[in-house]
Amino acid sequence: MLGNTYPDEVCSAARALEVIGERWSLLIVRNALFAGSTRFSDFQRKLGIAPNVLTSRLNTFVAAGIFRVSGSSRTDREYHLTAKGRDLVATIVALTEWGDRWARPELGPPVTYRHNTCGAAVEGRLQCTGCGSVCPPEQVAAEVAPWARAERAGH
Amino acid sequence: MLGNTYPDEVCSAARALEVIGERWSLLIVRNALFAGSTRFSDFQRKLGIAPNVLTSRLNTFVAAGIFRVSGSSRTDREYHLTAKGRDLVATIVALTEWGDRWARPELGPPVTYRHNTCGAAVEGRLQCTGCGSVCPPEQVAAEVAPWARAERAGH
Repeated sequence: MLGNTYPDEVCSAARALEVIGERWSLLIVRNALFAGSTRFSDFQRKLGIAPNVLTSRLNTFVAAGIFRVSGSSRTDREYHLTAKGRDLVATIVALTEWGDRWARPELGPPVTYRHNTCGAAVEGRLQCTGCGSVCPPEQVAAEVAPWARAERAGH
Repeated sequence: MLGNTYPDEVCSAARALEVIGERWSLLIVRNALFAGSTRFSDFQRKLGIAPNVLTSRLNTFVAAGIFRVSGSSRTDREYHLTAKGRDLVATIVALTEWGDRWARPELGPPVTYRHNTCGAAVEGRLQCTGCGSVCPPEQVAAEVAPWARAERAGH
């Protein structure tokens, strides 16, 4: 069991949320990942996001190493996902699947993630590295590493 | 490829983020899931969150069906995760793993998720339902359902 959570120092989820814990953030990344958007005007048009909010999010992402910028002038500037940014796919898939199950499930999933080499659907799974089971949520526990407990105790 | 994303109408990720797309939200759920917190004072103490923010988030969660409330008076009120709330485990694991890989990876993961029946580590995976491969991020594409395209076209 997780005795405490650590928003400031040692918690990976907290650190991750520092960067992406806001509605637009994951939608911007998703648009870059799956719709191929690279330009400010693309993101703005496809997401209907206010320019000042979009500027702020993109600057945060560049500072966090999620996007890198190419182009020297304002008109030819493009935002490209880095490996760190592309690695958010699993988070986006998990969040989408949760939405599919709990928000208007009668409609079916509006977006399906597919394996681009064979075309079949891709699903997020929680898999046990020991027994190989796909774990339902109630079978997952959290264990805090000793150094993380120690770091916490120092505060 | 995803031609557009749909923040307002048909996008499950957007709907999910309406509820949980803010830093504290997933940390509150995680604390309930893995640390067993049920009381306002537990969440406040363990997360160091401002009372007005915590009140607002818990109210949003109750309205969204992620927590249900028990207890009639302020002093014995408890917040219990529903099945919808517990189902956020996969999202939390994916986000934590991303943080483990990209934020201070030299320290190792502060929290390990374990299978509570066998004790081994649990990992999030993107698995193809056709060929069975575990898919790296670059092999995942997104496909918009026809009804979702049609719904979008109507706006």
